[in-house]
Amino acid sequence: MADPIKVVQYGLGPIGIAAAKLVLEKKNLQLVGGIDIDPSKVGQDIGDVLRIQRKLGTLISDDAEGVLSQTRPDVVLHSTVSFLNRVEDQLQICCRAKASVVSSCEELFYPFRRDAVFSQRIDELAKKHGVTVMATGVNPGFSMDVLPLAMTSVCTRVEKVFATRIVDAAKRRLPLQKKIGAGLPPEEFRQLVSMGKLGHIGLVESLHAVADRLGLEFDEIKETIDPKVADAAVHTPYLKVKTGHVAGILHVAIGLNRGEEIVKLELQMYVGAERSVDSVRIVGEPPIELILAGGIFGDTATIARMVNAIPIVHGSQPGLFTAMDLPVPFCIK
Amino acid sequence: MADPIKVVQYGLGPIGIAAAKLVLEKKNLQLVGGIDIDPSKVGQDIGDVLRIQRKLGTLISDDAEGVLSQTRPDVVLHSTVSFLNRVEDQLQICCRAKASVVSSCEELFYPFRRDAVFSQRIDELAKKHGVTVMATGVNPGFSMDVLPLAMTSVCTRVEKVFATRIVDAAKRRLPLQKKIGAGLPPEEFRQLVSMGKLGHIGLVESLHAVADRLGLEFDEIKETIDPKVADAAVHTPYLKVKTGHVAGILHVAIGLNRGEEIVKLELQMYVGAERSVDSVRIVGEPPIELILAGGIFGDTATIARMVNAIPIVHGSQPGLFTAMDLPVPFCIK
Repeated sequence: MADPIKVVQYGLGPIGIAAAKLVLEKKNLQLVGGIDIDPSKVGQDIGDVLRIQRKLGTLISDDAEGVLSQTRPDVVLHSTVSFLNRVEDQLQICCRAKASVVSSCEELFYPFRRDAVFSQRIDELAKKHGVTVMATGVNPGFSMDVLPLAMTSVCTRVEKVFATRIVDAAKRRLPLQKKIGAGLPPEEFRQLVSMGKLGHIGLVESLHAVADRLGLEFDEIKETIDPKVADAAVHTPYLKVKTGHVAGILHVAIGLNRGEEIVKLELQMYVGAERSVDSVRIVGEPPIELILAGGIFGDTATIARMVNAIPIVHGSQPGLFTAMDLPVPFCIK
Repeated sequence: MADPIKVVQYGLGPIGIAAAKLVLEKKNLQLVGGIDIDPSKVGQDIGDVLRIQRKLGTLISDDAEGVLSQTRPDVVLHSTVSFLNRVEDQLQICCRAKASVVSSCEELFYPFRRDAVFSQRIDELAKKHGVTVMATGVNPGFSMDVLPLAMTSVCTRVEKVFATRIVDAAKRRLPLQKKIGAGLPPEEFRQLVSMGKLGHIGLVESLHAVADRLGLEFDEIKETIDPKVADAAVHTPYLKVKTGHVAGILHVAIGLNRGEEIVKLELQMYVGAERSVDSVRIVGEPPIELILAGGIFGDTATIARMVNAIPIVHGSQPGLFTAMDLPVPFCIK
C-alpha cells in the first residue's frame, strides 16, 4: 500500500474542524498538524479542538511556517477566509514549504478574472516549488460550475446555461443562517448588502468559469442580492424569523449578450424553503435538464469535495489550477 | 490562437461519420484524414462520405499506417468495433504513428479487469511513443460511470450506487434498434442472447469502474439480459413491433456483497418507452438523487463526448487512461 498522504489543516473554524475530522476517517490520509490564530485554540491538542475524545499528540499553532517545516505535509487543507487579498501570504507560506494546497477560499476557485496578477504570482510560485494549488467546495466548486460544465461534455453545441440552487437554510449551521441575513428586518438586510456585508461569495466566479470554458461572451453582467421575506414566522434551532422579516437571500448572477440571458446562476438560501433542490438546464444539442432532488447538503459536500480532492491534487502537475482543470474527485475510502 | 489539433477519423460507420462532421464544426480541430475498410468508401473523398455537399480533398483509405504517416494527426478518433481483441492492432498503429487516441470502443473504456495484460501492453506502447489512449462515449463513458462517480465527490461516505438509463429506442438509429432485438419474437431474442449476440456492451465495464474507484468489493456479480415484450404494437420509422414481440432489451448488471446489491446498473432500451430518463441514486452521506429528465440522447452524446475529449487527451500525459483519470471535457466551440 502507498504511504499515506500527510495533511495539515490550516484554519480550524467549523469547516476546518469538519474537514480535519474527515481526514482522520480516511485510510490513506494522515493528519499531521493544525494551524489557527484563535488564542482559544492555540496550544490545544488537535483532538481536543475536534472533540473526538482522544488526543492526537499534536498541538495547534499560530506559527504556520513552523508547523509546515516541522510536519512536512504533502497537502494543506486550507480554510481560513473567502477573499484573495487575505489568503496570498498563507498560500505563499504553503508553497514555500513545498506543500500543495486544497483551499475552500471562494474567490480562489476561479481567481483569474478578479486578479490576473495575483493568479500569475501564485501559479509561478507553485511551479517554482513543485506544488499544486486549487480551491474547491460545493458552491463555488461544484453545483453551479463544475457540474454544469461536466454536463456540457455530452453536448455538441451549447447556447445557454442555467443553474439554480435552492437551500433550506434551517438545516444549516448558525454562521450560515447569519450570513444570509435570516432574522433581520428587510431595511437592515439592504443596508448590509450595500455595505458589501451580505451575499454569497463566489457566484460571479462560477459565472465566469462557466462562460470562459464554453466560449460564451457577455457584454453585460447583472448581479442582484435581495431579501427573501418570510410570509409566516419561521423558527430554527438557532434563531427566529418574524413574519415580514428576512428569511434569507436571493442572489442572482446573470451574464447577458445583446440583452439575452445566456448564463444565469440563481441562489436561493432561506429558512423555511419547502425543499432543497439543485438544478441545471442547458440549452443546446442535446438539451439537458438535470435535477438533484433534495439538493446537495452544503456543509457535508464542501468538506467532502476538499478531502476527496487531496489525492488528485497530490498527484497533479505543479501550478495554480481550477477544479475543472483536474480530474473530478470521487469519494475516497 | 493555438494551432488547430489535427484529427484523423478511424472508422466511418454511422458514429464515425457523425463524429467527423462534428470535428469539421469545431474551431480548433482540423480533420486531416479518414480510414475505413469498407470497399464502397475506400477511394472516396471524405466530404462525399460525410454528405456535406463539398469535397475535402482527402480520400478515405484502408491503409491506416499510410494515412497516419502522411497526415501526422495529433489525435485519432477511433470508432471501429466494440471488443478489445479486435482493436489492439489498430491502437498499436496509432501509437506507433505518435497519434493519441479517443476511442468509442466500449470494452476499452475500462479494460483492466477484462484483460490486464492487454491494458499493460497498450499503456507501455502509449508511453513509449508519448501518446495518450482513452475511450469514452455516453454509455459506457458517462451516464452510468463517470457521472455517478463525479457525484460521489460531494460525499463523505458511499455505501451503494444505483444508476438507471431508460431509452426510448424509437428515436434512435436503425442499427441500435436491431442491436436491442426490436421486432424479434421473444424466443429468437433469447437464442441470440445465449449466443452472445444481443446485449449492451460495456455495462460490466461500468460496474467495475464504479466499484474499483470507490473501493466497493463484490463477492458476486449478476448480469441478466431479458426481452422487454411489447404489450401493444409499436411502429418506428424503421421497423414494426407486434404485440407480444420484443420491443427492446432490459440489461442489468449487479455487484453484490453478502447478498446485498451494492452497485446496480440497469439499462432499459426499447421502442415505445414512455420517456427517456437517466437517474443516479447514491446511498451515502449525503445521499444523492439525480434525475436527467428526458435522458441524454445517446447518438449525439457519444460523438460529443469523443470530440469534446480531443483537447483533453491532446494535453494529457502519455499512457492508457480512463475517462475518470482525466479532467471532464466540456463542450468545445
